Amino acid sequence: MRIAVDAMGGDYAPAQIVLGAVEAVRKYKCDIVLVGDEEKIKAELAKTGMANNPHLIIHHASEAIEMGEHPVEAIRHKKDASLVVATKLVKSGDCDGVLSAGSTGAATVAAKMFLKMIKGIDRPSIATPLPTTHGIALLLDSGAIVDSKPRDLTEMAMMGSIFSKYVYGIDNPKVGLLNIGEEETKGNKKVQATYPMLKQAKDVNFIGNIEGRDIPSGKADVVICDGFVGNIVLKFAEGLAVTLFQLIKDAIKNGGILAKLGAVLVMPALKKLGRRLDVSEYGGAPLLGVNGCCIICHGSSNAKAICSAIGVAIECVKNDVTGHIRDSIAEEELLANDSETI
Amino acid sequence: MRIAVDAMGGDYAPAQIVLGAVEAVRKYKCDIVLVGDEEKIKAELAKTGMANNPHLIIHHASEAIEMGEHPVEAIRHKKDASLVVATKLVKSGDCDGVLSAGSTGAATVAAKMFLKMIKGIDRPSIATPLPTTHGIALLLDSGAIVDSKPRDLTEMAMMGSIFSKYVYGIDNPKVGLLNIGEEETKGNKKVQATYPMLKQAKDVNFIGNIEGRDIPSGKADVVICDGFVGNIVLKFAEGLAVTLFQLIKDAIKNGGILAKLGAVLVMPALKKLGRRLDVSEYGGAPLLGVNGCCIICHGSSNAKAICSAIGVAIECVKNDVTGHIRDSIAEEELLANDSETI
Repeated sequence: MRIAVDAMGGDYAPAQIVLGAVEAVRKYKCDIVLVGDEEKIKAELAKTGMANNPHLIIHHASEAIEMGEHPVEAIRHKKDASLVVATKLVKSGDCDGVLSAGSTGAATVAAKMFLKMIKGIDRPSIATPLPTTHGIALLLDSGAIVDSKPRDLTEMAMMGSIFSKYVYGIDNPKVGLLNIGEEETKGNKKVQATYPMLKQAKDVNFIGNIEGRDIPSGKADVVICDGFVGNIVLKFAEGLAVTLFQLIKDAIKNGGILAKLGAVLVMPALKKLGRRLDVSEYGGAPLLGVNGCCIICHGSSNAKAICSAIGVAIECVKNDVTGHIRDSIAEEELLANDSETI
Repeated sequence: MRIAVDAMGGDYAPAQIVLGAVEAVRKYKCDIVLVGDEEKIKAELAKTGMANNPHLIIHHASEAIEMGEHPVEAIRHKKDASLVVATKLVKSGDCDGVLSAGSTGAATVAAKMFLKMIKGIDRPSIATPLPTTHGIALLLDSGAIVDSKPRDLTEMAMMGSIFSKYVYGIDNPKVGLLNIGEEETKGNKKVQATYPMLKQAKDVNFIGNIEGRDIPSGKADVVICDGFVGNIVLKFAEGLAVTLFQLIKDAIKNGGILAKLGAVLVMPALKKLGRRLDVSEYGGAPLLGVNGCCIICHGSSNAKAICSAIGVAIECVKNDVTGHIRDSIAEEELLANDSETI
């Protein structure tokens, strides 16, 4: 098992990326190819005392894609960008999967361009794990496809189900269509057209429409929505968590000595909860629909998040998520052709 | 000042609705017309010792609209429904505003049918107040318009600005377009087409695109989005709050005696914060764009929420929000006609 890691992508690159890779080698006994500026990566590795570990391989790339760059332009012009080189290592078969905490748009374009789409899938989607009361719900799409079509949403349901089954081990995962009401007739034209398609979709355990409040309660294992909606929901959750944490801190600070003492006493219990809700424990978000394993990490990923994401990449490859998606869509097309013949 | 209250709408109707009306009469020295089953309302009023208060008027209505009913069908067939009668009291000039915690769809249909739209406004939208770090942000639309057009979103911006200015007293309120990135070219076709229209909109202090994470931080005073997105965001926030509260309670319960003691000590500070974040303090959501004041309350509204919502209705009427919207759209049409003539 060998995973290519874009060492230059992310707010804390290359330091936290290299640290995460080192942790992953220890934890998963895998090979990691760190792609990027050799000197910088070497310097970071030296600090960890793992510079000569044979499982940590440096692959030099002279360029890096910045966050503000136009994805397509960047991929076209920076042929020696760490992300491009890392993705091509999967294409050539040298690596089993690729991971980046850099620009999501660029990672998506690189995957589409070099790994290509799985035949029969129109567009790739990003599946983001969200902690719920029961466990994890997979939200897709989280921003790869805006202006998605009902067909895209149906493909997401199939791909999300496969990921949820093979990586999280959820048997027959429940799929919910994110809407503003439970009835089949609710919502905008897009979801209204998607509902009957999901009801008929093969390999999809469709439980109907779910509402915003049903996401955290864990009503569905796989939550399907347009990338515009999914991205807003995710970033809203992020902002809410940050704001709430700040407000609680301020309230305790202004609450006097007893509130401060109380906070100290209650902290161990809350820290345990915080770990369960900490998204960096769940690793990155797989880009589903492309021919190969590609994991997208949050820009602010620290070493722990990178290490978890490498774990997700390994599970993806080991359980052949891409292969299962390929089989499912091929079978579906076969069925469609059969029914046309009849 | 006289507000018509649908006494039969809401999960806790009529008891909490009547209690809220009683509180409002004490607090705002206004008249409240309680519309619904006379016997039931009388029984609730008797419990409060305010049965003979001249500011609490009962207006009998023999029917009530249930939550599951089709809005248009219900309004058409139940001519003596409390919501219908209450809305007509505004149309006839007997009341200055109407308020309901029943079906949002039915309240919207009733307002459109009996109060009519303001000339020049295509569709009404619901503006929901959300607590932020700084104060309150107004999110619209929260579910009245799915499949909105750029024109609808631009009208929302104007109407939300007027409400924010005249009811919250925010001078030149900042308007943000909810999107998945800050750049003008980001997002789906709808928001891309809306951006230039908002830039040119009169009476709108457009600050550009904002992301989901910017809502709780209070970057904008008025957040503009399609009703499908707004409704999902709102319900997600609601669900997240409930789930988080439950998880924290469980964590403290399982955290042993020290965690429990800590929770007791920290509670007063958190309760103060909770009151600031409690949406029932902010009252209901105005339905903007119709000819008259119509306030929609959450189905689970308690007496406090109803009382606050009556306060919002009073502010709406006192500051002539409807008149200001009417003037703004009339001026805009005038300008459009002028430029056509030139």
